[in-house]
Amino acid sequence: MSGQEKALKTLAVVGCGVIGNGWAARALAAGLDVRAWDPDPAAGERLYAAIDTAWPALQRRGLAEGASRDRLHFTTDLEQALEGADLVQENAPERLELKQTLLARLDAELPTSVPIGSSTSGIKPGELRAKCQRAPQRVLVAHPFNPVYLLPLVELVGGEQGADAALQKAETCYRQLGMRPLRVRREIEGHIADRLMEALWREALHLVNDGVATTEEVDAAVVYGAGLRWSLMGTFLTFHLAGGEGGMRHMLEQFGPALQLPWTRLQAPELTPELIERVAEGCEFQAAGRPVAELEARRDRFLTELLAVVERYWPEAEGLEGRI
Amino acid sequence: MSGQEKALKTLAVVGCGVIGNGWAARALAAGLDVRAWDPDPAAGERLYAAIDTAWPALQRRGLAEGASRDRLHFTTDLEQALEGADLVQENAPERLELKQTLLARLDAELPTSVPIGSSTSGIKPGELRAKCQRAPQRVLVAHPFNPVYLLPLVELVGGEQGADAALQKAETCYRQLGMRPLRVRREIEGHIADRLMEALWREALHLVNDGVATTEEVDAAVVYGAGLRWSLMGTFLTFHLAGGEGGMRHMLEQFGPALQLPWTRLQAPELTPELIERVAEGCEFQAAGRPVAELEARRDRFLTELLAVVERYWPEAEGLEGRI
Repeated sequence: MSGQEKALKTLAVVGCGVIGNGWAARALAAGLDVRAWDPDPAAGERLYAAIDTAWPALQRRGLAEGASRDRLHFTTDLEQALEGADLVQENAPERLELKQTLLARLDAELPTSVPIGSSTSGIKPGELRAKCQRAPQRVLVAHPFNPVYLLPLVELVGGEQGADAALQKAETCYRQLGMRPLRVRREIEGHIADRLMEALWREALHLVNDGVATTEEVDAAVVYGAGLRWSLMGTFLTFHLAGGEGGMRHMLEQFGPALQLPWTRLQAPELTPELIERVAEGCEFQAAGRPVAELEARRDRFLTELLAVVERYWPEAEGLEGRI
Repeated sequence: MSGQEKALKTLAVVGCGVIGNGWAARALAAGLDVRAWDPDPAAGERLYAAIDTAWPALQRRGLAEGASRDRLHFTTDLEQALEGADLVQENAPERLELKQTLLARLDAELPTSVPIGSSTSGIKPGELRAKCQRAPQRVLVAHPFNPVYLLPLVELVGGEQGADAALQKAETCYRQLGMRPLRVRREIEGHIADRLMEALWREALHLVNDGVATTEEVDAAVVYGAGLRWSLMGTFLTFHLAGGEGGMRHMLEQFGPALQLPWTRLQAPELTPELIERVAEGCEFQAAGRPVAELEARRDRFLTELLAVVERYWPEAEGLEGRI
């Protein structure tokens, strides 16, 4: 972006818990001015401490030109925090009424051209905007993942009220923060990522509740197996590879029937011809003409590099066998 | 293990599809003799090709002393394949009757001291053994993950018929193959890992079926977010860190109520005091006295290294933006 006008020079962080602090750290490392607000004066100290904790990792990732921890300003005065902000990121606790009231206040005070992203895990944009009077469409879901200063995903949900302009602007801002915006087509509780994680989490709780496994056994079942693939490819492309040269189509023939089996507490959708087509075509788009063998070779090169890294971090490297 | 007697010198691989071939590659790289059987003569050619495909990755991982692709012998004669085997790995298609018949034949022909591991994704040991007459207890679930020659997890399920001796011996063998055996306490359809993966997979299918997201959007929601953490820590330890210094106990207070929300199609268990205790104590055991800040610092060091690796493999590195 150097040499051209940047959309985002100042980020206002509204609400300084773990997530808000993560946004502040990411923005500082990207060379921005950050103005942070929290009603609790003690939050300021925790914010500065969190930035210090995150900073070594951000330095290893590479700081942007001009990046400095000195460009952080904390205040308990909301109006002051919003001054000059190009983007506002709201990170209040996940309580609907609280967020609605705070977002209405932000909407009332900010120029209508400033997008407001909410770090909500699961609330839909239509609900977030309910009390906003001026420009409700610029209130968006912008849901990041912990640690925000390292994980690139941000889910953007504009909702049904035509938030295209705000979405466009917000997307540019988040890309400038080094993130990967994922636009979610439809308002849905939990967006996309948290629906997936929540399904895993609920099944994991059932396993522990039923006495099938301990927490560390459940974690080990992820970490030493499928978890190794999930930073490179998701469930769909993974199964595309499991299908061999026939890809997802063959995989659905072979493992589709397992959807009928009581392998989880969750009921699966029926594998209609339409669903099969949608899934198979999706995977073929993702494969982009690359044969499965090529995708496998790329996966294997990645996995050997990943294993060399992660083996140094697994608990057994610290003599804590199995405590994953 | 060098200098001492090894439990496993010869592995018999029974059934040569993607999984059987993966076992053969892993065992050859570990310096074993491998005898492989498949009723289809054409499977032999595919097996040798699969070994050649896997070999560069295995070389990068480091071959054991004496490891050689020449130590692979393929035959369509089952008796010949079983000769001298210290461990037999069965990888027939996932059809109960077929597996039961094949396992009964293996049980009839093999010395009773030889453990028989079945690579079944979801069938319980009690069902697998149903037709075995001689030593049914040595028939175990030994469920690996694709690619078998790189992913270390193997789920071992002994079932309720007292398979302790066979389990012990099998576990030693799998460790010799560089794997991480996870003993599953109870027989349950889908064991542990596939219950978790199946929950994710079913939720993902619902999202695509409902038109909420495409396959690549679902995959992106994993890969650029939570998927980055899953090779280091599972759901439980991840949420322990999300709880800040209060760990899992605080996290359950804060996000436990989300279990009531319709964030997935899956119903969650009730968060009883007993379940809370079991989960919190499990996480505290996993943390092994390390404060959350220490676990976070370790996670961040890992993530910066992981990002440096995986960014070179994500599709955008090949100009295929978003096709994850």
